[in-house]
Amino acid sequence: MAIILKNNMKKNTAGIDIGGTNLRCGVLGEDGTVKSRLSVLFSKSLNEGEKQVDFIVKNVKQFLSANGKYGIKSIGVGVAGQIDDKTGSVLFSPNLNWHDVPLKKMLEKETGLDVYMANDLTAITYGEWKFGSGKGEDNIICIFAGTGIGSGIVINGSLYTGCSNAAGEIGHITIVSGGRKCTCGNFGCLEAYAGGLGIASIAKERAAADNKSFENIINTSSGGIGSISAETVARAYKAGDKKAVELIKETGLYLSDGVISAVNLLNPCVIILGGGVIDGIPGLFDIVKSEVDRRALKASVSSLRILRAALGKDAGIIGAAGLAAMCGC
Amino acid sequence: MAIILKNNMKKNTAGIDIGGTNLRCGVLGEDGTVKSRLSVLFSKSLNEGEKQVDFIVKNVKQFLSANGKYGIKSIGVGVAGQIDDKTGSVLFSPNLNWHDVPLKKMLEKETGLDVYMANDLTAITYGEWKFGSGKGEDNIICIFAGTGIGSGIVINGSLYTGCSNAAGEIGHITIVSGGRKCTCGNFGCLEAYAGGLGIASIAKERAAADNKSFENIINTSSGGIGSISAETVARAYKAGDKKAVELIKETGLYLSDGVISAVNLLNPCVIILGGGVIDGIPGLFDIVKSEVDRRALKASVSSLRILRAALGKDAGIIGAAGLAAMCGC
Repeated sequence: MAIILKNNMKKNTAGIDIGGTNLRCGVLGEDGTVKSRLSVLFSKSLNEGEKQVDFIVKNVKQFLSANGKYGIKSIGVGVAGQIDDKTGSVLFSPNLNWHDVPLKKMLEKETGLDVYMANDLTAITYGEWKFGSGKGEDNIICIFAGTGIGSGIVINGSLYTGCSNAAGEIGHITIVSGGRKCTCGNFGCLEAYAGGLGIASIAKERAAADNKSFENIINTSSGGIGSISAETVARAYKAGDKKAVELIKETGLYLSDGVISAVNLLNPCVIILGGGVIDGIPGLFDIVKSEVDRRALKASVSSLRILRAALGKDAGIIGAAGLAAMCGC
Repeated sequence: MAIILKNNMKKNTAGIDIGGTNLRCGVLGEDGTVKSRLSVLFSKSLNEGEKQVDFIVKNVKQFLSANGKYGIKSIGVGVAGQIDDKTGSVLFSPNLNWHDVPLKKMLEKETGLDVYMANDLTAITYGEWKFGSGKGEDNIICIFAGTGIGSGIVINGSLYTGCSNAAGEIGHITIVSGGRKCTCGNFGCLEAYAGGLGIASIAKERAAADNKSFENIINTSSGGIGSISAETVARAYKAGDKKAVELIKETGLYLSDGVISAVNLLNPCVIILGGGVIDGIPGLFDIVKSEVDRRALKASVSSLRILRAALGKDAGIIGAAGLAAMCGC
């Protein structure tokens, strides 16, 4: 299914980006720039006993009220989860541990504005397509590697969201048959190897099995082996630690397997790569670019450009606000 | 890119299906039935020194002349290879070992008719979509496992052929990172495990390493270990041989990995499975159906139907003829 977008861009809309760790709000001007922004960390801001969803609604209201001068009429919301495209409810968000949360209804009731709901990667992809690296392109796969890995797909000039609004789950394509257990319940998924959680989990296992060789990585972590994260590995990698460099090279090869699969299956004109893992580990982008060039089918590579995402942390709010502006809600 | 189809179905068109081993020709009536057909095996019919492409042109001319009563005005051709969508030349066909063969021009010159060229899986997918299992559906992935594995993609009611007419190469998605060498040069591709050549190659290796356990498979082959094919394994499997049953179960799991990847990435409404490997090994379809149901993301499986292809060996000629009828050439 394609999202049908009407060409009636309103002047200013708000974009809300709800990830697993941050709530980001922004006002998007007609020119595609962010006029005002707010970013709050759930872990530091949530009051005791306060529900995450209530905290979000409260903060969105405060943000809108503080930005009344922009005359905002509609809000776009991107959530890391699956959205019911009829009701706008969040059917399931593994990172937020939400099931059937009627966020669209709650926000519409509390703000009195029109609310457009999307998966976070759909929003990010829309942002990169209209205002970022994908400008003017008709066939794009926008892949973001962060805690997990997801993608958004533009086909023939339309956002493609699938039969039940669930397309783009590139993090859950199999790259190692029968391999590592993934959070989705399947085995060998791309994100179990090249997502932030996957990288951390592999590093922890190796460090536990060989303390000596992984000394630098363990010492880089604030809380020893148990606290090793993808950021820990990235820091050790930047400091030139041998084991971290090895691990990041492997991560690059796994990520390439996933990108090659998408390139061979979908023959896009443009692949956009972004997210914390790509942005935080400088070498990864070049590994993927060179591996795809070397190993994907020549017929598909001849027409392909691989680009870095351009909008950074604003991609989600720009995309969500852009969708709200264009969808006519 | 989508193939633009005009709604001016002519009464009768010819469909030509050029595979690695067979040339198939047929006349497609307006009702979607094949009125006349011809099938020739290259290996048995080619004269010494005769070029395959000359043999094809000669046979197509003879077929048209023998079916003059149908008043055929255009021909659709499906080739197992990549087609230049501007010139209709076959850019590369690994199975036929063709490079830059101007088949459209040759056929138009020799027959005086309009010729529409397509990749064989694009043609088969069009056939199954319009006349077979995919009737009335808008989002389909049609996966055929034969010597190799390929697919065709229908998105939002249009055939999707990619940025450079090369989409659908599901046989070359990575399912075992760094795994078996594939004919494409990459490693760990789906078709290196679950295509006919892949199955044969795995069986040969295992038989060579353990003659005793693979006795039945070796004896089923007409020429010993070196001649083991996917058909050999299928025959031993049907006779209940333990090692063949093991191997086919593994094949089913590998094939499932590929189908799950496509389901999670593209969230289609329908998957159609066909081709010699699926049709020739009765248990495979059920393994894939049950594995996808069990291991793909719930959000994608909830709206998915997995169906067998309906048109059998006629799919290629029906699809190619159908494309010629609808494309307005």
